[in-house]
Amino acid sequence: MAEKSEKAKPKDRIEELGEEIVRDVKGGRSPRFVTLARTRSNIVFDQKEGYLKLGKSKEERSFLNVAQSKRFMQTIAIAAKCHKFVTENLHTTIRGLFYQLKYSLGEDIDENIFNEQAESNPLIEDLEVGLGLSREALNLNANRKGVLAGNMKIKDKFGDEMIQIDCSKQGRSGWAIPSDVDNDIEFVDIKAKYVIVVEKDALWQRLNEDGFWKKENCILITPQGQAARGTRRLIRKLADAGLPVYVFTDSDAWGWYIYWTIKTGSINLAYIGKDVATPEARFLGVTMSDLDKYQFLNKLTINANEIDIKRAQEMLNYEWIKKSKEWVTELERMIKSKKKLEQDALQGPRLTFVGEYITEKIRNKQYLP
Amino acid sequence: MAEKSEKAKPKDRIEELGEEIVRDVKGGRSPRFVTLARTRSNIVFDQKEGYLKLGKSKEERSFLNVAQSKRFMQTIAIAAKCHKFVTENLHTTIRGLFYQLKYSLGEDIDENIFNEQAESNPLIEDLEVGLGLSREALNLNANRKGVLAGNMKIKDKFGDEMIQIDCSKQGRSGWAIPSDVDNDIEFVDIKAKYVIVVEKDALWQRLNEDGFWKKENCILITPQGQAARGTRRLIRKLADAGLPVYVFTDSDAWGWYIYWTIKTGSINLAYIGKDVATPEARFLGVTMSDLDKYQFLNKLTINANEIDIKRAQEMLNYEWIKKSKEWVTELERMIKSKKKLEQDALQGPRLTFVGEYITEKIRNKQYLP
Repeated sequence: MAEKSEKAKPKDRIEELGEEIVRDVKGGRSPRFVTLARTRSNIVFDQKEGYLKLGKSKEERSFLNVAQSKRFMQTIAIAAKCHKFVTENLHTTIRGLFYQLKYSLGEDIDENIFNEQAESNPLIEDLEVGLGLSREALNLNANRKGVLAGNMKIKDKFGDEMIQIDCSKQGRSGWAIPSDVDNDIEFVDIKAKYVIVVEKDALWQRLNEDGFWKKENCILITPQGQAARGTRRLIRKLADAGLPVYVFTDSDAWGWYIYWTIKTGSINLAYIGKDVATPEARFLGVTMSDLDKYQFLNKLTINANEIDIKRAQEMLNYEWIKKSKEWVTELERMIKSKKKLEQDALQGPRLTFVGEYITEKIRNKQYLP
Repeated sequence: MAEKSEKAKPKDRIEELGEEIVRDVKGGRSPRFVTLARTRSNIVFDQKEGYLKLGKSKEERSFLNVAQSKRFMQTIAIAAKCHKFVTENLHTTIRGLFYQLKYSLGEDIDENIFNEQAESNPLIEDLEVGLGLSREALNLNANRKGVLAGNMKIKDKFGDEMIQIDCSKQGRSGWAIPSDVDNDIEFVDIKAKYVIVVEKDALWQRLNEDGFWKKENCILITPQGQAARGTRRLIRKLADAGLPVYVFTDSDAWGWYIYWTIKTGSINLAYIGKDVATPEARFLGVTMSDLDKYQFLNKLTINANEIDIKRAQEMLNYEWIKKSKEWVTELERMIKSKKKLEQDALQGPRLTFVGEYITEKIRNKQYLP
């Protein structure tokens, strides 16, 4: 399980699993693989730490159990492939893994190990949890999305070379955040003082053009919508480096979801909860209470749709929301007014107002927990 | 119209429009704005050049015409804002423009110029066509997507600084292709010999990890699915620099669509057809005929769905497809077998096979027109 392997190398950890199986077979016992259950009932919100994680329920796949032997065999086949990838030092995706598994059965065997990728996906998660290793450590890339600019450098091992990328010299493009920000990659010379995460790439480009990160000495990130694993992990790592994290989204259902996912993690990734959650993150805006302070925004609200209203109502039932007077006020205001506000609206008076808004909000500590 | 303004600066071009209007008003004539029709009936496929473009039908918005005066006023309001953006040397998106227009009416006027962005979008296209300027030249960023690696450098004006980005030193990330690849940006030191466009980012990462672009001295691009404006334009520019362009996608409806969009342009962007189409592009694969040459792929086909079959049938009716025996064979084979093939499947035997496949296909000139 996760605890014992935190320092183990992926290759060693997979080999340990193999050795256990061989020992069981030689000892006349049924080989088995133990993992934590990823069912809803085993996903808990850690009130103290502030993120979603797995509980203690375990699941076992035993070879000599008719109901489990197929899944056991499939899990071991995946482990063997990942061992190969790690040994070769080559990466692929779960789609690439799926095709390797399909391919690797000899021509004379009719039955495929997997017929659909949907079969292999949950087993990869089993392995991640059971071995205490992320899929990135198993050389499986996840989808990547997200861009960064700011005063920091990246050392990225590329082939035999160590490449250094200066995130303050990426022009209009920014540095594209990869799937894996943990292995063979380092973040050095972090001179920036805080991190601002901007929901939309359009607003990131606006702020980047203004040299916002330069003037403010911050790190400017956009997840380009909902944050991918790599971006969530990177935000966590920057928080670990001591940088405060502020999140700037629309004031609507989707924007809040993006914020809470960065902050508390998500149900889907509860099995690696701690590594991809940043409970220290603060919500900078836009907020419904901005309408009081910035009068012009009242002309620029748009109609909330049913999803926004429904989501706001659901959020009012969360324990951690109920505790925050500010969030309750925000949500109730949207439900009552049936209006929402986009971060793009800040460009109404002048394009450069977006940066002024962020600076003022941070200076006055006007953010939500 | 497009012809006369190709060398004009955006600011001058908008001012010309303003001066024309003033002349009309002073001369007692109704001010008007002329653009090309972007209706289906005015979109033609240029057989000789091989791309989709607008025909010669014109549309006029006249101020003193009750049916047209609102659109005339809206178009001029957009032109005025773009003039402001260009003068300030600041960029935004069409969403940012929408909010500036909403904002700019005084507090005492109840009626908004635009109530929905859907109203302003087509008018921006009118302006692009009427002025012969792309929206990027009007300082309106479009969505960006796509990544590049290879032996070339980029000079990108960022603030007062000219930043140089080496696309061979971007590690696992690659250089993120921006929305605008024409203004204040230059491509220099293009040492690569050809361009390979890979549909999926997953495969781009696979090839990038293998140092494929380094060994082959090519430029490795992924549009990350359907190509955004910036990526299409960049491919066109690299073809203009004399580099052959090969496109590598799945053998299915979506993959073909991505290819044909890069090659011939698309109906939506027919109004800037020539600038975003690369008729010289060749289709490298994967193809149904790969099944004959690479036996193992027969185990790795997946079922074609209804959309794939329907799309293949439609494509058989296109004039330019009918002329190509190879494409007809491809499409008929998929319709008959009801099977399709993903580029990911090439990883079946070994992860590095993807690069071997590409090299062999190019060497043997095994590509479709």
